[in-house]
Amino acid sequence: MLKDVQDRTEHAASHRWQYGENFFPASRKVYIEKNWDEHRLAVPMREVVLTETNEQGEKVRHLLYDTSGPYTDPAIKIDLKHGLPRLREAWIRSRGDTVVLDDKSFQTDFPHVPRRRAKDGVAVTQMAYAKRGMITPEMVFVAEREGLDAEFVRQEVASGRAIIPVNINHPESEPMIIGRNFHTKVNANIGTSKITSSLEEEVDKMIWAVLWGADTVMDLSTGAHIHKTREWIVRNAPVPIGTVPIYEALEKVNGRAEDLSWEVFRETIIEQAEQGVDYMTIHAGVRLHYLPLTVDRVTGIVSRGGSLIAAWMLAHHQENFLYTYFEEICEILRAYDVAISLGDGLRPGSIADANDRAQFAELETLGELTEIAWRYDVQVMIEGPGHIPLHLLQENVEKQRKITHDAPFYTLGPLVTDIAPGYDHITSAIGAAVIGWMGTAMLCYVTPKEHLGLPNKNDVKEGLIAYKIAAHAADLGKGHPRARARDDALSKARFEFRWRDQFNLALDPMTAEAYHDETLPADGAKVAHFCSMCGPQYCSMAITQRVFKHTEVRRGMEAMSEAFRASGSRLYVDEAALNRPSER
Amino acid sequence: MLKDVQDRTEHAASHRWQYGENFFPASRKVYIEKNWDEHRLAVPMREVVLTETNEQGEKVRHLLYDTSGPYTDPAIKIDLKHGLPRLREAWIRSRGDTVVLDDKSFQTDFPHVPRRRAKDGVAVTQMAYAKRGMITPEMVFVAEREGLDAEFVRQEVASGRAIIPVNINHPESEPMIIGRNFHTKVNANIGTSKITSSLEEEVDKMIWAVLWGADTVMDLSTGAHIHKTREWIVRNAPVPIGTVPIYEALEKVNGRAEDLSWEVFRETIIEQAEQGVDYMTIHAGVRLHYLPLTVDRVTGIVSRGGSLIAAWMLAHHQENFLYTYFEEICEILRAYDVAISLGDGLRPGSIADANDRAQFAELETLGELTEIAWRYDVQVMIEGPGHIPLHLLQENVEKQRKITHDAPFYTLGPLVTDIAPGYDHITSAIGAAVIGWMGTAMLCYVTPKEHLGLPNKNDVKEGLIAYKIAAHAADLGKGHPRARARDDALSKARFEFRWRDQFNLALDPMTAEAYHDETLPADGAKVAHFCSMCGPQYCSMAITQRVFKHTEVRRGMEAMSEAFRASGSRLYVDEAALNRPSER
Repeated sequence: MLKDVQDRTEHAASHRWQYGENFFPASRKVYIEKNWDEHRLAVPMREVVLTETNEQGEKVRHLLYDTSGPYTDPAIKIDLKHGLPRLREAWIRSRGDTVVLDDKSFQTDFPHVPRRRAKDGVAVTQMAYAKRGMITPEMVFVAEREGLDAEFVRQEVASGRAIIPVNINHPESEPMIIGRNFHTKVNANIGTSKITSSLEEEVDKMIWAVLWGADTVMDLSTGAHIHKTREWIVRNAPVPIGTVPIYEALEKVNGRAEDLSWEVFRETIIEQAEQGVDYMTIHAGVRLHYLPLTVDRVTGIVSRGGSLIAAWMLAHHQENFLYTYFEEICEILRAYDVAISLGDGLRPGSIADANDRAQFAELETLGELTEIAWRYDVQVMIEGPGHIPLHLLQENVEKQRKITHDAPFYTLGPLVTDIAPGYDHITSAIGAAVIGWMGTAMLCYVTPKEHLGLPNKNDVKEGLIAYKIAAHAADLGKGHPRARARDDALSKARFEFRWRDQFNLALDPMTAEAYHDETLPADGAKVAHFCSMCGPQYCSMAITQRVFKHTEVRRGMEAMSEAFRASGSRLYVDEAALNRPSER
Repeated sequence: MLKDVQDRTEHAASHRWQYGENFFPASRKVYIEKNWDEHRLAVPMREVVLTETNEQGEKVRHLLYDTSGPYTDPAIKIDLKHGLPRLREAWIRSRGDTVVLDDKSFQTDFPHVPRRRAKDGVAVTQMAYAKRGMITPEMVFVAEREGLDAEFVRQEVASGRAIIPVNINHPESEPMIIGRNFHTKVNANIGTSKITSSLEEEVDKMIWAVLWGADTVMDLSTGAHIHKTREWIVRNAPVPIGTVPIYEALEKVNGRAEDLSWEVFRETIIEQAEQGVDYMTIHAGVRLHYLPLTVDRVTGIVSRGGSLIAAWMLAHHQENFLYTYFEEICEILRAYDVAISLGDGLRPGSIADANDRAQFAELETLGELTEIAWRYDVQVMIEGPGHIPLHLLQENVEKQRKITHDAPFYTLGPLVTDIAPGYDHITSAIGAAVIGWMGTAMLCYVTPKEHLGLPNKNDVKEGLIAYKIAAHAADLGKGHPRARARDDALSKARFEFRWRDQFNLALDPMTAEAYHDETLPADGAKVAHFCSMCGPQYCSMAITQRVFKHTEVRRGMEAMSEAFRASGSRLYVDEAALNRPSER
């Protein structure tokens, strides 16, 4: 049992983090090389090698979007004490619009990593660059990941329809984009609570999450060592990291909501921005005069941050300081390119409260704040619900698009029913898939532990698989040009009984194979033309293959088909008379 | 290891089937008594007793729809050798339109249960009665379960928009209704394959399925002892049982599809009808001239029955005998009230094949066959896909309603993506919820083992929970008047930290409690105003309760609210100036 925090971090930095390129079977890391200005970009993908061969006799390779960063690259040695390679450092440096900070009082376990801030008066955000007509290396990187044009990416970022969350102090992150016209993204929440978990468990969860496909990770820690835990996460995260700064602010005032203040909050966001947090949830839309709208709700205010702000406002009879000082917040964040995730502190936490006045009142304020942030070139996304029944989803998307000027929507689910604690990854995957299809840009996952306790590593995986399903289903529904390829490759493998290829293309190859092997573990079963669902005689795909693959049958069927068409449509009775079987 | 089938059935008939009224916590069986004609109906519900008390100081009780039959009624002794109480026998007998069969050559382990058939030339279907203006005890029973009017039920059945699947030879079943205007229903598939499972495992699965909420169960056995296995299931099933008779027909011709024939099929459906099968999947829409439409598919024909018929047709160069002899099929089934589930033999088994010409060509034929069946007063439902991406679901529902004259739709999922074998209960719960919301009457579940192997008991439960979620989400979306009550009661319990009530109202109380107890097992935690997700300081619901429940605060907030409204809307800047905090 490691008591000392230093011991804990040493322990975390052990070799077991090197998952290696074979975490996923038949997979390897590949990089697509792009030159931009003087920079050489290496855009990561995962390549799955199939047993299928093409006409040249080569094995077919299937490229997949890859969030796992260096953890699946055997050429990169992982040392958590050192942090990941800082791939963006040269790009940031070459822009020449930042200074290196030299504050010795800043608490850090990573003194070798330079911290930066914008030169005075300058905005160093991707939105600022995009509005000036600049295509940054980040935009080129993202365009390659998405299979789209870099100029299109620039336009989306300039207009605010998409964001690239890349704090200048998180140079280790592989840039990604959040917007309705790109792949639907998934966020995984991790973090300690006062009751359970620890620094090394959370670093472990972050790595586990990016392995299983998390596009961003939010560290929602409320336990001990929030600052240190987050630092180890950021330095070792290949994806953007989000936070909710009000939690750490509350810790600084010893847990008394009434003692929160703008000064404490300001200090907190600067520290977090200097660590490298890429986006921050800020509940600036929870306004004092909205609170009465929540009094008759079934589940009140279910947002931690929202309820803390409500408590503060009622204690002081004052407007929310996050609202009051919103322009000051923007001035700070534009100097680091921290994106604002405008929090939905008044989101509904039950079906009964869905789409109520409190929820949409806050959304109106978020629209107002979006325009202010954009004046400062601060990137913005809009957080969304919650608990919403199927028939009320459309209204959410329509209102959000209109009121917040098409900024990216980032929903928590939503859960389409309240009746299944223990399975809320499913109740919410349903809502998430549909609201993603309707245009939501990022889906915040929900695990089986929602409403019941802090998720463990297995819950993180379960939540991620459910949400990768939802995000992909949304992409298919939206007609994303690259989405279908994976379904088609897997189904082709299934039909041709290339079992290993079917497993290896699946979101979770290990589970697919394990389930198959529960009843048919022998090697020969991996090329068998059946499984234990139907057995050899009843496998529809095997039967289909047998009868349809004979050229004579194909020719015969085409001839038959012509003959029937030529005969015109026949009455049922006539055909019955014609078709009565003779002796068999 | 029980080798002999007789031993196996003895073993199955052990006392462990008596799950008792405490299978679900804080629950008991109640019966709503209704008199109809000379019959006394006892309509079962499950009553959950909460810790919440009403104004009279009594504990609040919550009624839930209950599919578990006598298995949760301690007053009924379960003896599988004897079968369940035959609650409908008196109703059937009193209609006086059937004769008891006395064929000693009929294989049965239950000689004490009379078998019936209609008197010559008479239709004994619920549709026939409904068209004549009769309200049967079955309709009254169903109306009570659904909370709707019996006359409305009659109209829905008469029009064909709904079916009540109640074979006169399955008097043990508690009547239920399948139709767009009623609760969305869920079917669980069970059954042996040649590779695995056994009679007693499948009887066990059936009981397990109805405990977890299956509204009907299909026995899709293809292994040994199909006839005997099904009989034990039917005699002990409180829900309608469905089959796919072509499987047993194939067994009778030693597994050679080419040796199938109308005669063998006819013999099979009569045997199954006399056993008491309530509905039969009949792939009469797979027509010879449709087969060429499947040749270029990615996954061909994925329906077992569909592929067997295809193989037969190609071997004989003849039209599908199920189509040819469809009127004869109707003549047989109307004498027992076996409903026809018109099979979707050409459903798409991959996203690539969704909504293709083969799929809709078959649907056109199903429309034709629906009208024929209705002329014989045979009840009909229409089977549906499959694998369908989100944006193509609507077209399925619109076409099905129009082409098959609003007969009930009964879909398999659909799966909204192919990429997640191992999790197809989730990929398909998404499609099922949405297509249910759009009007589908019954959802056939999919388990985590789909595409990989035969489901075991745990898979059955996982599939059922996912589908009860989908069905309930569909009911909420459709605005079913009774649906919201459960969500509201559970959310109220959640907000008031009545943890046990929250668990007990959940679809799976045991798992909800177990997940909670993973981190907070102590008894005190069941009344704690937090869980390990956030801990006591950060629990939003606790914070909300604390600040909002004070009357002074409520009054204060109302006053504040009035004051703000009276002041009109203020510019952001003005409010900021007004609200700058003084020293703290």
